[in-house]
Amino acid sequence: MIKADIGLIGLGVMGANLALNIAEKGFRVAVFNRTTERTRAFVQEAGPLSERIVPCETLEGLTAAIERPRPIILMVPAGAAVDEQIATLLPLLDRDDIIIDAGNANFRDTRRRMAELADSGPRFIGMGVSGGEEGARHGPSIMVGGPEESYRRIAPILDAIAARYEGEACQAWLGPDGAGHLVKTIHNGIEYADMQMIAEIYGILRDGHGLQAHEIAPIFTKWNEGRLNSYLIEITAAVLAATDGDTGKPMVDVILDRAGQKGTGRWSAIEAQSLGVPATAIEAAVAARSLSAMKAEREAAERRFGVPAPSAGPVTEQALSILEAALFAGKIVAYAQGFAVMAAASREFGWNLPLATVARIWRAGCIIRSQFLGEIAAAFEKDPEAENLLTTPAFASLIETSHPHLRRVVARSAEAGLPVPSLSAALAHFDTFRRARGTANLIQAQRDFFGAHGFERIDREGTGFHGNWAKG
Amino acid sequence: MIKADIGLIGLGVMGANLALNIAEKGFRVAVFNRTTERTRAFVQEAGPLSERIVPCETLEGLTAAIERPRPIILMVPAGAAVDEQIATLLPLLDRDDIIIDAGNANFRDTRRRMAELADSGPRFIGMGVSGGEEGARHGPSIMVGGPEESYRRIAPILDAIAARYEGEACQAWLGPDGAGHLVKTIHNGIEYADMQMIAEIYGILRDGHGLQAHEIAPIFTKWNEGRLNSYLIEITAAVLAATDGDTGKPMVDVILDRAGQKGTGRWSAIEAQSLGVPATAIEAAVAARSLSAMKAEREAAERRFGVPAPSAGPVTEQALSILEAALFAGKIVAYAQGFAVMAAASREFGWNLPLATVARIWRAGCIIRSQFLGEIAAAFEKDPEAENLLTTPAFASLIETSHPHLRRVVARSAEAGLPVPSLSAALAHFDTFRRARGTANLIQAQRDFFGAHGFERIDREGTGFHGNWAKG
Repeated sequence: MIKADIGLIGLGVMGANLALNIAEKGFRVAVFNRTTERTRAFVQEAGPLSERIVPCETLEGLTAAIERPRPIILMVPAGAAVDEQIATLLPLLDRDDIIIDAGNANFRDTRRRMAELADSGPRFIGMGVSGGEEGARHGPSIMVGGPEESYRRIAPILDAIAARYEGEACQAWLGPDGAGHLVKTIHNGIEYADMQMIAEIYGILRDGHGLQAHEIAPIFTKWNEGRLNSYLIEITAAVLAATDGDTGKPMVDVILDRAGQKGTGRWSAIEAQSLGVPATAIEAAVAARSLSAMKAEREAAERRFGVPAPSAGPVTEQALSILEAALFAGKIVAYAQGFAVMAAASREFGWNLPLATVARIWRAGCIIRSQFLGEIAAAFEKDPEAENLLTTPAFASLIETSHPHLRRVVARSAEAGLPVPSLSAALAHFDTFRRARGTANLIQAQRDFFGAHGFERIDREGTGFHGNWAKG
Repeated sequence: MIKADIGLIGLGVMGANLALNIAEKGFRVAVFNRTTERTRAFVQEAGPLSERIVPCETLEGLTAAIERPRPIILMVPAGAAVDEQIATLLPLLDRDDIIIDAGNANFRDTRRRMAELADSGPRFIGMGVSGGEEGARHGPSIMVGGPEESYRRIAPILDAIAARYEGEACQAWLGPDGAGHLVKTIHNGIEYADMQMIAEIYGILRDGHGLQAHEIAPIFTKWNEGRLNSYLIEITAAVLAATDGDTGKPMVDVILDRAGQKGTGRWSAIEAQSLGVPATAIEAAVAARSLSAMKAEREAAERRFGVPAPSAGPVTEQALSILEAALFAGKIVAYAQGFAVMAAASREFGWNLPLATVARIWRAGCIIRSQFLGEIAAAFEKDPEAENLLTTPAFASLIETSHPHLRRVVARSAEAGLPVPSLSAALAHFDTFRRARGTANLIQAQRDFFGAHGFERIDREGTGFHGNWAKG
């Protein structure tokens, strides 16, 4: 019997689609699912692709079916299920076999699992896969972390199944350790911020200008033809144009404004805090989802405080161009924050993360895919040492011309009572960042006053100076 | 020999002052330090108080010197040192003895230590102590978590050494488990936000109105006589009035604007994220400290982008009253966020945390002490089920009259390029919170479009509805 090129455990939606993608690209894939019925149904549904699918009813069968060294993709729920699956696999695998966790793992778990397997276990790869169900089937963005030689064993397969941007496969080995899962986490954090900023602009158009969904849709369609061109802007236009079959109303108008959040958005905020990197636009986006879930409290608050009526008047071409530029400026800051978190993680864990490559493999396949990411890739390629997007020449020019619009939108929204948490966080970040002389001197004075923490001086080298405070 | 009432390990600044405080209140305290010289020096410096101090050169001596059940305060650096100290103590202690960690522990470590000791070890208390060196000596705010019966053993001592507010001791048992250390962590997070907002107003006065430090000091002095009355406003006035002896310049003007941060501010942001509670004003404050540390990058950014000159003109009485009200509004939101994090932690861990008591024991002794906390205590006493300060009648009225000023300050600062990260986060929080119909319906539509995540409808019960999206 011809051995399979790779194994895959877990035939849920993502796992099944990934297996079909692999088979379609000409590779033999051995599959196993906890319930055998699912495995059988999957093979039946696979049609002609089933030629290259090897259904296995036991893990022993699975491991026997794969060419050595054996790569096995786990697509099981993140968390305890991954640990359990690894434990059952261990006795069946050799030192050079490769377990590939393709779920949305917390990269700290990935680090722990690698450490646990380091001495005697098989190799372990943490692989972020973005693009949802459709991406898994037709081309996801794939972010790999772990031993480079194990990556090379599976690189031909990843290269074949990944999304392509101008012919280039959106997959890469990004570094050892949990690098792949950390990058996937930050991808999702950026996605939260991007979506939140779009929602804030939508709110201004709906609640400030009083526009209906079908009037807002073409605005995003038009923006999608310019520098904001991206999958998220494209689908924003699409969902705003959609009509609910049951009521005939705009689809978005019958959807409850209570957003879910999965772990990764939250994790990205937690990692930013752990690394001491400002990521306020992302944090504000995660917080906005939490606030959205407090529907009953918000209803009570509106009863108590009221809410201003639309006051921005009809929307002019000029107003739209200001909103577009504000969204663009906010987006630059949010992405800059996300990339700064990755740069800090890279330093902290010694990964040497190639930021340009990260941007390149996000240009297609994943949710935040856009031409904008091509510009980010170019900026980091020109200056591989750059850690802050805002100070690269290209993005400095872009933010320079767009921040005046961002500040106008934040100011008007503040006056009008329109919430812009992520956009205002982005503006505050830029305004704090561009000031050589900030206000932390006052904070240092307070800390020295009450806790004798000491401070540095502007006119002298050294640390631990104290003020001669007159205490009452 | 008369046995000591309590033991204390670690005679650093905080431990030494706490021991002196205990002795001064009439209790006998047995003390031990890793280096015996420090113990000897401490007793010598203690003067007449040394009568009630029992210096011990070994841990065996320490444990032998204390009345059973033996309470022993650890005042050693948070982290590994605590675990090591516990390990060395274990063989010397009985089941009913009480180890009290009075350092700034992460409450998750406290939970772990309690779990580790639960079966066989002595009792374990996690005790937050706030007020710095002076507080430790003359009256800190003390937040206790752990077994209630162990707390009762030490309550008379805590009652005697704590700060007093109108005769009431600022110490309390807040709940089992890590409740005390979590409350201390959130205290520090609120402290970060309070300090940051003060710094933002200082920045507006300095960089917007062009005022000098000695012109700003009396503004805070005056505000300290009103509803902003607090230790932090008081010391802000004091540090702004102070002159550097060496240069004759205002002290704050020679202090470098690079602020330090310890773990607790960061932890409070991480816990807020972990619990899914919006705490954006606190997160923005922590991020502002991180940004302040990026001095070289900020200098480069100012060279690239420039910074606007003061444009707000002379400061009028009206302008000052708007700034005062804005700071007050921002402070309400920051405290509301902090208390919401504690309420969520209480639910998550089953602590039944008494929020009114938390506010009461913060009225004196700690860094954020103020009369404002008395009003928070009153609000939670009137409605012990209230979890959100913003919707209590008293604070709803206060925010109702002050938020228009906050939005004016945020708007003007946005236009003028003055960074107000925490104040604008507070405004965005309020504006998001008071809207019954938010914009998360768009986010849910997007998520359903790209990931089939499903949504709820406004006109029907149930979850998992999907849109009939036309995909291009």
